[in-house]
Amino acid sequence: MTAFFYGKNKESPLLKTQLTTYQIRVNSALNSHIKQQTSLSQDGKNQLINALEYATLNNGKRLRPALIYAMGEALSIPLNTLDAAACAMELIHSYSLVHDDLPAMDDDALRRGKPTCHIQFDEATAILVGDAQQTLAFQIISEDPHTTDTNKVRLIQLLTQASGIHGMIGGQMIDIQSEGELPEINQLRTMHLMKTGALIKSSLLMGASQSDRYNDIKERIEHFGNLVGLAFQVQDDILDIESSTETLGKPQGSDEEANKSTYPKLLGLVESKTYRDKLITEAQATLKQLNLNSAFLEDLTTYIAKRSY
Amino acid sequence: MTAFFYGKNKESPLLKTQLTTYQIRVNSALNSHIKQQTSLSQDGKNQLINALEYATLNNGKRLRPALIYAMGEALSIPLNTLDAAACAMELIHSYSLVHDDLPAMDDDALRRGKPTCHIQFDEATAILVGDAQQTLAFQIISEDPHTTDTNKVRLIQLLTQASGIHGMIGGQMIDIQSEGELPEINQLRTMHLMKTGALIKSSLLMGASQSDRYNDIKERIEHFGNLVGLAFQVQDDILDIESSTETLGKPQGSDEEANKSTYPKLLGLVESKTYRDKLITEAQATLKQLNLNSAFLEDLTTYIAKRSY
Repeated sequence: MTAFFYGKNKESPLLKTQLTTYQIRVNSALNSHIKQQTSLSQDGKNQLINALEYATLNNGKRLRPALIYAMGEALSIPLNTLDAAACAMELIHSYSLVHDDLPAMDDDALRRGKPTCHIQFDEATAILVGDAQQTLAFQIISEDPHTTDTNKVRLIQLLTQASGIHGMIGGQMIDIQSEGELPEINQLRTMHLMKTGALIKSSLLMGASQSDRYNDIKERIEHFGNLVGLAFQVQDDILDIESSTETLGKPQGSDEEANKSTYPKLLGLVESKTYRDKLITEAQATLKQLNLNSAFLEDLTTYIAKRSY
Repeated sequence: MTAFFYGKNKESPLLKTQLTTYQIRVNSALNSHIKQQTSLSQDGKNQLINALEYATLNNGKRLRPALIYAMGEALSIPLNTLDAAACAMELIHSYSLVHDDLPAMDDDALRRGKPTCHIQFDEATAILVGDAQQTLAFQIISEDPHTTDTNKVRLIQLLTQASGIHGMIGGQMIDIQSEGELPEINQLRTMHLMKTGALIKSSLLMGASQSDRYNDIKERIEHFGNLVGLAFQVQDDILDIESSTETLGKPQGSDEEANKSTYPKLLGLVESKTYRDKLITEAQATLKQLNLNSAFLEDLTTYIAKRSY
């Protein structure tokens, strides 16, 4: 897990330490929420809660919560006022994976090196757990004792806009419908901006939502989020070709097998790397303009290209 | 649709008129929200939005929105401040039906006389549409210009608590797991209180949420909601035996075939009717104590037993 974003000899000690801190923080908060759900249950740990725990506490990379915390820290927002947003964001990301892995969707048996939720349990449980993760995301924000009602409403607006029809869900629909086709580069870009970019962008915005500077920096944050999200996705496609199954935690070349459209297929491998680097350079410039002085966000932007899974 | 809650010669003109008014109101609001989603879409009406429209604007009975409006009216809350809650509640109910109908769950091909969402479209679309309906529910509340942030937060708390692990989703999990078994009456009661009762109860609470009397009457509303919810479910089980496929909009006896536990199976048909009537009598008494003077809620409580589908 701690190897996230680093190949051998490419490590940034600061990034590694900071990311681990964020991971521990959000995992602990998620664990508390699941414990609370268990204590509220009449029959204790039932199958639904077991599956919720299995799908949520899964050694995920916690990139999106890290973006929330990092942006918040850069704007001097207290971390304890960001925990609910971080948990909610990860639950939305996690539910999308649980549902995307279903046989009717991507039909994946392996996720982060472990059986996917519907393999470990069954399809009905996986559908319900995904539904429950989404509900819990909004519940956690709405019940958070550490922030104002106005900020809660803003967080829920950001999260629903990013994950709904014009964001993550819409992107997944395009992805499924375009399997077997080879779309143009612009269509692929739109799909990824919706499917992956929207949550990355809104993570950054949710981290900034309590800042006095929010309205002034919102647009630039969005631009930075789009660039980072796209670069992340291009690298994902490159890794699908270059990495081993063991490192990826899913079958190597699975996107290729599934007849999915990828950047290397459309642009070639060399050109994809050039495109990725161009995105990263622009992201770095945008981050500089934001004047945040966040070593973590700077390192993260740089190291997207160097991560090995 | 207007025949809801009435067999022949059993009509309450007030209930019928009022319910139709509420149905038209929430359908119009839902229609606006779907139109807005379409206008935000780059490619206009795509498959996801078509399926969203199909699953949402489906001549549903709109019982839960009607409960929100009726409770709000009884407490002199302006109806336009209740539209978002009514739409959100119906979207949550609707998403649960779309997912429950999936092959991995109840595997139903017919809903309200029409092909279910995964039959009309496909399974992947039905999973994504259910997900999108849930997201849209919380988005609509969070973006509502007609109510305060504090009320929005309360509405989202009520809706997530009612529809999550300890409410609707948990109830559906118990329902699926208990198929083929014949549980005790208490287990069946718990399952229905979670699966159906929780949303009915929270509809009433959401209607009341802006009232000054909210904290004083909350508990009594919950008790009333539990009684009405259970009576509604017992009647549902009775109708599954007594009504025709055409009237029900789903195959008659489908619960029996699916080896589902029902009140008539556990108590017998006569005893089930006695139980239903006992619940209704207690609900009527509780409503009287609430001192709301809502002819609609009084009629509704009475007519649950007399509805024919």
